[in-house]
Amino acid sequence: MKTLSENRAFGGVQGVYTHASEACGCDMTFGLFLPEEAERGAVPVIWYLSGLTCTHENAMVKAGAQKWAAEAGVALVFPDTSPRGAGVANDEAYDLGQGAGFYVNATEKPWAPHFRMWDYVTEELPRLLFNAFPVAEERQSIMGHSMGGHGALTIAMSFPGRFQSASAFAPIANPTASDWGRKQFSAYLGKDEAKWAQYDATLLMKKRGFDGPILIDQGGSDQFLDLLKPEALAEAMAARRQGGIFRMQKGYDHSYFFVSTFIEDHIGFHAAALYD
Amino acid sequence: MKTLSENRAFGGVQGVYTHASEACGCDMTFGLFLPEEAERGAVPVIWYLSGLTCTHENAMVKAGAQKWAAEAGVALVFPDTSPRGAGVANDEAYDLGQGAGFYVNATEKPWAPHFRMWDYVTEELPRLLFNAFPVAEERQSIMGHSMGGHGALTIAMSFPGRFQSASAFAPIANPTASDWGRKQFSAYLGKDEAKWAQYDATLLMKKRGFDGPILIDQGGSDQFLDLLKPEALAEAMAARRQGGIFRMQKGYDHSYFFVSTFIEDHIGFHAAALYD
Repeated sequence: MKTLSENRAFGGVQGVYTHASEACGCDMTFGLFLPEEAERGAVPVIWYLSGLTCTHENAMVKAGAQKWAAEAGVALVFPDTSPRGAGVANDEAYDLGQGAGFYVNATEKPWAPHFRMWDYVTEELPRLLFNAFPVAEERQSIMGHSMGGHGALTIAMSFPGRFQSASAFAPIANPTASDWGRKQFSAYLGKDEAKWAQYDATLLMKKRGFDGPILIDQGGSDQFLDLLKPEALAEAMAARRQGGIFRMQKGYDHSYFFVSTFIEDHIGFHAAALYD
Repeated sequence: MKTLSENRAFGGVQGVYTHASEACGCDMTFGLFLPEEAERGAVPVIWYLSGLTCTHENAMVKAGAQKWAAEAGVALVFPDTSPRGAGVANDEAYDLGQGAGFYVNATEKPWAPHFRMWDYVTEELPRLLFNAFPVAEERQSIMGHSMGGHGALTIAMSFPGRFQSASAFAPIANPTASDWGRKQFSAYLGKDEAKWAQYDATLLMKKRGFDGPILIDQGGSDQFLDLLKPEALAEAMAARRQGGIFRMQKGYDHSYFFVSTFIEDHIGFHAAALYD
């Protein structure tokens, strides 16, 4: 692992690191914010999964999350959203290939060799993180935006006991029923839709739910509402009696201005669960 | 109008008043909390509609709402839930007749002569209130519990511009699809289900929504979840992009212990809208 940069921020350190990834078969870069408390021992950690077209950097520089993480004494990890590089398959569309890993393990050509973001985010990067940094494996929460909200919710529900809380901004909530999902799952996973279900937050909510609190924020003026399908997740959460909060934030769109407005609430929500 | 009692409470006055009601054809009793600020001028008002079996008194003595209303400087009005008295029709069941008005105007025998709670709560009692007390007609919000949550939401959506905000605890969310609703609407409104739709919060949400923020709290261990159908309302709110918050409160049941736990949030939510 190589350190690309480390900057003092809010009394802690915002670092960027790169490493050769076995899961993705390429170098992968991630951001990690460690609060001041990490100088004295392991701190809880919140995973932040980003959306389409993002790298590790977007949320790190635009979400305004570090201030609240510093106040709460929790670390933030910002993984990239896909494998990258000249040897990695890609597509001209913004929503397929590099920058659009969708947090799945691809099984189809030409994606299968590199597009294994599920394994990267749930196995390889955690192993590296807990070995190399003062973060507490037994105190993790997870959140994300858009495609990353989809990732956060599906991962949270797939590893019972691992995460104390989960939250999402404008998640792709029901990808098996959306053009943000059907297109990518067809490409990465093939035509058998039975294999898609494990990567759909609404279907997972119907099937098993999450053993902790969930917070969802959705902008009421989000330009992608028809693709995100928040109503499917809202219905499934209520029908499951899932402990949590679903908020429709009137007038807000899909941007980081929306995320940065409510990130304080999300970090506070996770901190409450992590220190419970 | 006759004063039944007035008690100093939280610097203001908790009063109980009775009057001959034209809408209901009987004497009707209601509670009114006026904060200290009402001594100097008109204050905003929050309507609190109660649930099955309740009178004006239950929420007034068990919800713990006055403390927060006093802090916010808003009045609270607690209407009864049905007409009452020896000359008023009734039924042996707890969920039909006296104590179970369902906030509708009955059209069927034997209910039609007295069971006009819709008109009472939306016309007659407001007129009396704004004439007799220092409450500001242009600053109203509405909330309720269970059957009263149903009343609050349906009334809020039926009078655009009247209420700045609406909230509910465990509302009967989709009565046309529930035994809490179908039984009563059949009795009060007759067999033509087309006439029921105006009294169903989920159907109104699908049709028009509410022009202000909505807050819903639902207990995750509510013993009546199958009758309340929160998932129908959650789906309709998200599909409508209704500005608001839907919270599933894990472990809470249908009781006033649930209401009193979160009443601070609801009063604060309304106060923010009323002073906006």
